[in-house]
Amino acid sequence: MNATPCLVIDPAVLQRTIDAMAALVGGQGLDLRPHVKTHKCLEIARLQRDAGARGITVATLGEAEVFAAAGFDDITVAYPVWVDEKSGARLRCLREQASVRVGVDSVDGARQIARHCPAAQVLVEIDSGHHRTGAGPAEAGAVAAAANQAGLEVAGVFTFPGHSYSPEARAQVAAAEQDALSAAVGSLSAQGIASPVVSGGSSPSAQFVRSGVLTELRPGAYVFNDAQQWELGACTAGDIALTVHATVVSHAGGRLVLDAGSKALAADRPAWASGSGRLLDHPDARIVMLSEHHAVCELDGPLPSLGSTVRVVPNHCCNAVALADEFVVGNWDGERLDEVDRWQVDARNRNH
Amino acid sequence: MNATPCLVIDPAVLQRTIDAMAALVGGQGLDLRPHVKTHKCLEIARLQRDAGARGITVATLGEAEVFAAAGFDDITVAYPVWVDEKSGARLRCLREQASVRVGVDSVDGARQIARHCPAAQVLVEIDSGHHRTGAGPAEAGAVAAAANQAGLEVAGVFTFPGHSYSPEARAQVAAAEQDALSAAVGSLSAQGIASPVVSGGSSPSAQFVRSGVLTELRPGAYVFNDAQQWELGACTAGDIALTVHATVVSHAGGRLVLDAGSKALAADRPAWASGSGRLLDHPDARIVMLSEHHAVCELDGPLPSLGSTVRVVPNHCCNAVALADEFVVGNWDGERLDEVDRWQVDARNRNH
Repeated sequence: MNATPCLVIDPAVLQRTIDAMAALVGGQGLDLRPHVKTHKCLEIARLQRDAGARGITVATLGEAEVFAAAGFDDITVAYPVWVDEKSGARLRCLREQASVRVGVDSVDGARQIARHCPAAQVLVEIDSGHHRTGAGPAEAGAVAAAANQAGLEVAGVFTFPGHSYSPEARAQVAAAEQDALSAAVGSLSAQGIASPVVSGGSSPSAQFVRSGVLTELRPGAYVFNDAQQWELGACTAGDIALTVHATVVSHAGGRLVLDAGSKALAADRPAWASGSGRLLDHPDARIVMLSEHHAVCELDGPLPSLGSTVRVVPNHCCNAVALADEFVVGNWDGERLDEVDRWQVDARNRNH
Repeated sequence: MNATPCLVIDPAVLQRTIDAMAALVGGQGLDLRPHVKTHKCLEIARLQRDAGARGITVATLGEAEVFAAAGFDDITVAYPVWVDEKSGARLRCLREQASVRVGVDSVDGARQIARHCPAAQVLVEIDSGHHRTGAGPAEAGAVAAAANQAGLEVAGVFTFPGHSYSPEARAQVAAAEQDALSAAVGSLSAQGIASPVVSGGSSPSAQFVRSGVLTELRPGAYVFNDAQQWELGACTAGDIALTVHATVVSHAGGRLVLDAGSKALAADRPAWASGSGRLLDHPDARIVMLSEHHAVCELDGPLPSLGSTVRVVPNHCCNAVALADEFVVGNWDGERLDEVDRWQVDARNRNH
């Protein structure tokens, strides 16, 4: 047995999630540009590419560097990078290795990119209702015009409809995303600027996106799924490709205590989540208390025995991966893991 | 400037928190055994030892291995480790390098340790009200007796009063901790077993512990402090030794958006916390929305300018450190960081 906690990928489920999203997005005539911040893993990005992904999405220049060095040649940095002298030099190097575009959501941000990386390709970020970063759809044209004027190449617009992470919101958010992107395309067009790329998408909203306005989707978490996707109805338990294997260390207070805490699962717990994570083989179980090296679970029925291995579904797969160095790839028969491979978290800690 | 986000230690504040806790605990005639899971850093553990710490506390065998290899020879694994064949072999190796004791909270757990690491030294874990792991105080004697009978050496009892992480609870929890440990000592004594070590302590409750029952304290977070300690009143802003330096990337929606998200700060947000983190130089600011690479902050007054550096206080320092490879040690003058050293997170990812 592996020492626990450890991240385990079920390879058959992984391939199925990759193929299903490729079919869904391709079926709408859209390009798929998966967000690799979820897995940070070259091996998995290659599987996504083999299944037809057009390119990849990353969150940081550091992630872009890892994937560009491995031959990924079409990369969107879906983030309003503040480009200074050092990051400008990195972006210039990246552009020698791959077709790279970065996000921008302000006139100042556009000028900053142009100062340190002349003629860079940019996508204007739009706020479609998540209210994080992004220009309002009506202001998108002004940002694009400033970018154009500063000598940048405007490739289009993008948004992250993160408010799809809320119960019953998915269909409605996909509609709002489409409306916002449509308005933004109009705002650029009024400045005489075309939008060959109109990019959106999140894993929860992906199945509600229709062709028409968008040209591509950038979901990330779908590749593994997690307790959030499960509770939002964006996947079933059978679609969960990543679990954290944990050992039962205590039955204190008649509850199940596992050795996987927030240093393995991450501490994400949105207000609507039913707990701090779930157990794949005990759908009624909930992690009711999470500390750094303990998950306290409540469940009906007899507790799994002390020393046994339990498969934990983290609330947020992306943040669980960010804590790990590697994935164990293997098949679980209910008692033992048949390990078939190990994959590195290649872009581990590439936060900048 | 360093690329952001990055973890920065203020060395003068660090030395002050180390000295203050040593004076507080020593002043009560107690031993200080700091929990190094907070920093995972040999350099900082050496500073704690130089200030008089009796030994160290760790959460996992993997952490114990890193510190034992560096010469730390008195180590408590404050966790009910489920010892199997592999971890038993590791524990036996550790015991050749250092005086090591592990936690146990059940009869089965004790027998398991004895099976794979005969004559190991153990501490019986007590639940003093946090309701995570630990035997009830009245059941402690039965666990100790089983350990004794299995050939283990019972060194005493310990508890983690984690319910001190709640507003206005600190003094009361310190009293409950003392009562529970006292009852546990009585329970062992009724079995004819002495408790030379009576160990407790958390950073929030440390200042309320009095001599009498306890012989040692094991606080961890005090060394850096964080937004939780700040909001609980366990420290002031001036006692915060660790911040995450972040860059302002957007003013979208009139709010401050920073490039430090949950992959740098960790996602901890207890129900009583006022936000997902704070800004050291803007005490009124709150992180109202946190995603993987974004912190959205609300604050009064003019927003720090785009591209400027801001010092973020994570909610939970231990989990922020678990995401990093290194600390930048340096002095911040309000605009620039004067870097004096870099320290590694030596026990990074030693979760098992």
